[in-house]
Amino acid sequence: MATTTLDPATYARTLAEHAVDAGRILACAPGCQRAQALDRIAACLLDQSAAIQAANARDLEAGRAAGLSAALLDRLKLDDRGVRKIADSVTQIARQTDPLGQIIEGYVRPNGLEIRKVRVPIGVILMIYEARPNVTSDAAALCLKAGNAVILRGGKEALNSNLAIADCISQGLTQAGLPADAVQLVDTPDRAVVGELLKLEGRIDLCIPRGGESLIRAVVEQARIPVIKHYTGNCHVYVDASADEAMAVAVCVNAKTQRPGVCNAAETFLFHQSAVRRGLLKKVAEALLVQGVEIRGDERTRQTVPQAKPATEKDWSTEYLDLIVAIRIVDSLDQAIDHINRYGSRHTDAILTADLAAAQAFTHRVDSANIMVNASTRFSDGGEYGLGAEIGISTDKLHARGPMGATDLTTYKWVVTGTGQVRT
Amino acid sequence: MATTTLDPATYARTLAEHAVDAGRILACAPGCQRAQALDRIAACLLDQSAAIQAANARDLEAGRAAGLSAALLDRLKLDDRGVRKIADSVTQIARQTDPLGQIIEGYVRPNGLEIRKVRVPIGVILMIYEARPNVTSDAAALCLKAGNAVILRGGKEALNSNLAIADCISQGLTQAGLPADAVQLVDTPDRAVVGELLKLEGRIDLCIPRGGESLIRAVVEQARIPVIKHYTGNCHVYVDASADEAMAVAVCVNAKTQRPGVCNAAETFLFHQSAVRRGLLKKVAEALLVQGVEIRGDERTRQTVPQAKPATEKDWSTEYLDLIVAIRIVDSLDQAIDHINRYGSRHTDAILTADLAAAQAFTHRVDSANIMVNASTRFSDGGEYGLGAEIGISTDKLHARGPMGATDLTTYKWVVTGTGQVRT
Repeated sequence: MATTTLDPATYARTLAEHAVDAGRILACAPGCQRAQALDRIAACLLDQSAAIQAANARDLEAGRAAGLSAALLDRLKLDDRGVRKIADSVTQIARQTDPLGQIIEGYVRPNGLEIRKVRVPIGVILMIYEARPNVTSDAAALCLKAGNAVILRGGKEALNSNLAIADCISQGLTQAGLPADAVQLVDTPDRAVVGELLKLEGRIDLCIPRGGESLIRAVVEQARIPVIKHYTGNCHVYVDASADEAMAVAVCVNAKTQRPGVCNAAETFLFHQSAVRRGLLKKVAEALLVQGVEIRGDERTRQTVPQAKPATEKDWSTEYLDLIVAIRIVDSLDQAIDHINRYGSRHTDAILTADLAAAQAFTHRVDSANIMVNASTRFSDGGEYGLGAEIGISTDKLHARGPMGATDLTTYKWVVTGTGQVRT
Repeated sequence: MATTTLDPATYARTLAEHAVDAGRILACAPGCQRAQALDRIAACLLDQSAAIQAANARDLEAGRAAGLSAALLDRLKLDDRGVRKIADSVTQIARQTDPLGQIIEGYVRPNGLEIRKVRVPIGVILMIYEARPNVTSDAAALCLKAGNAVILRGGKEALNSNLAIADCISQGLTQAGLPADAVQLVDTPDRAVVGELLKLEGRIDLCIPRGGESLIRAVVEQARIPVIKHYTGNCHVYVDASADEAMAVAVCVNAKTQRPGVCNAAETFLFHQSAVRRGLLKKVAEALLVQGVEIRGDERTRQTVPQAKPATEKDWSTEYLDLIVAIRIVDSLDQAIDHINRYGSRHTDAILTADLAAAQAFTHRVDSANIMVNASTRFSDGGEYGLGAEIGISTDKLHARGPMGATDLTTYKWVVTGTGQVRT
């Protein structure tokens, strides 16, 4: 691993060069060797749990001294159960089917050329994230599964924890006969290094930033390399004219309150006016109020829900990440779709309906990564989709959309095999 | 279509807004309606061939007056046969299988949720290109096939021809009941408009630049939206120790001379020293010299080929696009692979060999979009791969790699259908 005694530009270039070299070896390593590395990493994490927890304790202490919020300290914390969980996750990724070498398409042309589109690693990935140390091992494991080298840049609050975890990763790679440089952790909080890494077009193939909107905007602003990201999750539940009452109450409460701080929690509910007449808004609002949810409604909503505060234009675009919801009554399915396409963040949007045509129209016309029909927005997640761990959720449209697993960290090459064919 | 009386920023925003609206309609139009629009466009192109040729004559006249090169004038020219060819291409794209609605993956989760990954349009595409007017109809047809709205910005030398073609496209769309704004041509040569379009993150989903390296670099430099591109095609043919002599002569001559000005023509040949000892370099060089090819060789090459000029370091990275080839003798397959990964442009690289292990190593380890085993580099082409027309060849690794057809102009959404499931 390169060291921080170098200036930022040299350090960044050194990291990238080591990653390119390691990536080339990794791309040719058989799946069993990559899986063995993951198993060894998991074993090292368990063996060295005490050292990881000690490093984590130093981060927590520094964090408390620096006045980090309780929520941030909670995310940072790794106890014995936490270490077992991250080791488990690495083992699970080891057991997944190898994405590499898959023939995505294969056929023979009339001139006898055999054409195969073969899944291969992307190369070198730069992962930029915040305070959760579990991302260090999750991201490393997913990148290794897909044959990529990765440069990890975690939050400075978690640096000691991340170094301890990276040490286990390095040992696991070495034990499996793979280059330790396949996973490198940026070991300085100096932001200039990130800026330099983001410029290394042609050496770093992809950057995945994961964290708050300001982090992601800063990355996009500086990057000369491709970035896959999601900014915010302004998710909607639309309660259609024909929605079932019990389902509306259960799904709206779940989408808003089951874990309000995450990106696939709902932020706005839209009610068809007929559903309001059928009493659904009243029932849903009562259930939300019992859960302590603050409601911000448009004028018509407040006629039915007097406890609601007035919603302003800004509420329709806000990702509260809290026990607050905006509610609007719409005259039609069309109006609901227009509202979502206008104010939404293309993340996850749900319709609750018994009407097939309404479900079809919503599915076709809402331009989001994840469309839920009669299910909570909380299901848009790599684990819930059966992808195993996820490296992030993309609200971009290119390459990968929605939850991203190991397969999304691959590309393909065209392999054409002939017997001396020439073009005429 | 918006008009150029607007200032660049307003014009760009107006184009993008019209495109977003048209794209939303297009995304929901059934495949038969999109195919009908393409058929109508082809018919209009044939009907209005005289008008297109008259417009093209004005471009040619202005081009001659401006001192355009003969090669550029040749690319610009559209005669009766040329118009029939572009109409034919639109008809062929109309007959391709509709990529939209394809279920890329579909399965049921243990909790009963039905998960489908469904192919959908990307949205709005910005196509920036140079003097060939056929790109206007090809790009429009491919974008429409994939349900995308497109903003076309061709070279100013072809503006009259492009306007005449765009007029046919507009008529065809209207006749099929689709919005004419689905295909908009930027009707001013003002470069500031391009700069403004490239900033419209969230409205324009993808930019595909096609042309010389300086055009593409300028686009990448300015773009705040995703770009898929290829800079150069520095393609290699590696003649392995075990290569067949007749095949080496035929493929090397074809790869270099069949059409030297295109991106999949070969620029460097690498010969294994054993192949040189077997006389293959001599035979290949003789055949190249007969075709008038200038050879630039390393020192060892010049011992076998005295007619060769000395190659400098710069030659290994040069895309000649001309009857010039660089030749180097290597000691091993490893050295050939290292040379290609170091100097190549990740476009198309070929190995000629009878040795299975050599073919496998080359295929795995050369990091290029297209790998040819015993075939000419000239085959890396959408038509030759059976994709129908191509919108470009990507040397990027994300989203699409190699020749791109209509399917590469799509993304997917996750559609999850339940019966009221909530997350616990």
